[in-house]
Amino acid sequence: MNTATFFTVVQDDVALVEERMRAQTGAEHHPDLRVALEHLLSAGGKRIRPTLVFLIGRMLGAPKEKLVTLGASVEMLHTATLVHDDLIDGSLLRRGMPTLNARWSPAATVLTGDFLFSRAAKLAAETDYLPLMKLFADTLSAIVNGELTQLFAAHGLIDRANYYRRIYSKTASLFEMSALAATMVSTEDENSRSLMKTFGYEIGMAFQIMDDVLDFSGEQATIGKPVGSDLLQGLVTLPAIYYAENFPEDADVKLLSEGGWGNQERMDRLVKSIRNTEAISKAIAEARAYIDRALDAISKFPPTKERTELENLAKYIIDRST
Amino acid sequence: MNTATFFTVVQDDVALVEERMRAQTGAEHHPDLRVALEHLLSAGGKRIRPTLVFLIGRMLGAPKEKLVTLGASVEMLHTATLVHDDLIDGSLLRRGMPTLNARWSPAATVLTGDFLFSRAAKLAAETDYLPLMKLFADTLSAIVNGELTQLFAAHGLIDRANYYRRIYSKTASLFEMSALAATMVSTEDENSRSLMKTFGYEIGMAFQIMDDVLDFSGEQATIGKPVGSDLLQGLVTLPAIYYAENFPEDADVKLLSEGGWGNQERMDRLVKSIRNTEAISKAIAEARAYIDRALDAISKFPPTKERTELENLAKYIIDRST
Repeated sequence: MNTATFFTVVQDDVALVEERMRAQTGAEHHPDLRVALEHLLSAGGKRIRPTLVFLIGRMLGAPKEKLVTLGASVEMLHTATLVHDDLIDGSLLRRGMPTLNARWSPAATVLTGDFLFSRAAKLAAETDYLPLMKLFADTLSAIVNGELTQLFAAHGLIDRANYYRRIYSKTASLFEMSALAATMVSTEDENSRSLMKTFGYEIGMAFQIMDDVLDFSGEQATIGKPVGSDLLQGLVTLPAIYYAENFPEDADVKLLSEGGWGNQERMDRLVKSIRNTEAISKAIAEARAYIDRALDAISKFPPTKERTELENLAKYIIDRST
Repeated sequence: MNTATFFTVVQDDVALVEERMRAQTGAEHHPDLRVALEHLLSAGGKRIRPTLVFLIGRMLGAPKEKLVTLGASVEMLHTATLVHDDLIDGSLLRRGMPTLNARWSPAATVLTGDFLFSRAAKLAAETDYLPLMKLFADTLSAIVNGELTQLFAAHGLIDRANYYRRIYSKTASLFEMSALAATMVSTEDENSRSLMKTFGYEIGMAFQIMDDVLDFSGEQATIGKPVGSDLLQGLVTLPAIYYAENFPEDADVKLLSEGGWGNQERMDRLVKSIRNTEAISKAIAEARAYIDRALDAISKFPPTKERTELENLAKYIIDRST
């Protein structure tokens, strides 16, 4: 299956999004801000959120200019949260590139993240649509609240309900917002909005589960960070939860839930154990179930070329990693 | 002169603002967020920005509910910037109380600040007025850009133009926004908006100059931090600039501009020198000139009881510190 087509059809639009993002720093801003923004933009990523915005907006007939603004707002918000995340985790690499945190002082990193938040809010306001502004603010609250919960409570916690709440806040909330916002600037129809909100939610949940799977099954060169790094931070994701549910007496599982995630040797062994069981494939199957619900939601729309691309995007979330 | 009347006339409204701010955390948020918000709110401050919002909004006939929302948004934005500021400066005290930074980890402090930003944005959106949303985002950009500029460039810099830009970003921008926003929710009249924007700008500039004066002339018990602490961080404010302009050959001035602000003994001596000259009274006179321009701007409005209170607020900015 050729999954790349949906990226190709929006690549010119995504280029406009990047241009709009670059235009957020000007002569009135400190030159280092421009350098930082350029660094963050060149570090790339697939721009999957703006891609989602364009595919939905085109399908539902939104004005292109609004989608550029919205796509830039969403990606800027995402970038801002990454900058603060990397600072909080002390991460020095993201996607194999040095983080801002690795190059700058913590103070400069905090402020650069704040600046990106302010520009994301400004772009959201430029869509000239108040309900979208409220959605933007609520999404930001959800993301930050999730990070705080993770920071305070989730270390070594093997709890599935907690995991779902966490990945909603961390990832699915912004996918949900992107899909819903693209629909809001296209149509007043409540049913379309509700279906697209579901679509965004489901692919967002699947996206984070697959990201968590990759932390176990991927190779360092592909994922741009050491394998099993979540576990070493006491972050227990779905593959580890499945494993722990199947092997509650495993000594490494017990160590993890007793606060021993700092023991690299034992956590490395736990990663190997998890890789050798069906915990990984069960997590992937669960992500597939999310994608199936997403496909079901958009099957209610007329079968257009754009709908096919949205289906491809949904399927790609599983395929990119397997 | 009784300066307290303008606080008294709005105290019930300001209580509503605090209630609205407290309502920004709920059951869906991490309990420690509520604790943090409570700590920040109980640390107090005079709520001069919401007071400004109410005095202007009442004078121009805005709906009270909008003013409560706007006042909460402005004060929440202010609180968010303080939280990140204290982290960046490594400050352990503010207004004589422990900062969040002193009690929490840097990670938790970053995220709490982010959460407050998100709630400030949400409150701004709840005013249901898009131009205000854009003003909010632009003000946040200005504040953060100013902090970055200060972080990267202003250490030991004795430069008056730089100083004015800095205090605009840091303080006057939010006073300006508060005054303009309160006018925007009251009237479409462009002349009123322009005059009130000026009023906010001028009192904001004066407010920061007087704050900087207090750092030299105040007592530690009053200002809640050691006297001369700006200078020890390489932050050269108006009294020091006047002194340096008058005594460019002073050895301590030279040391300061050559990067020697870390020398506590020499900077203590410089603080004493500044206190013993007319640098302080010149800075106060300059703040008075800003206040005179503010009074001139509101003299264009009909002479009502509310206008008198606004005049009192403007005068208080000088009197509180002298």
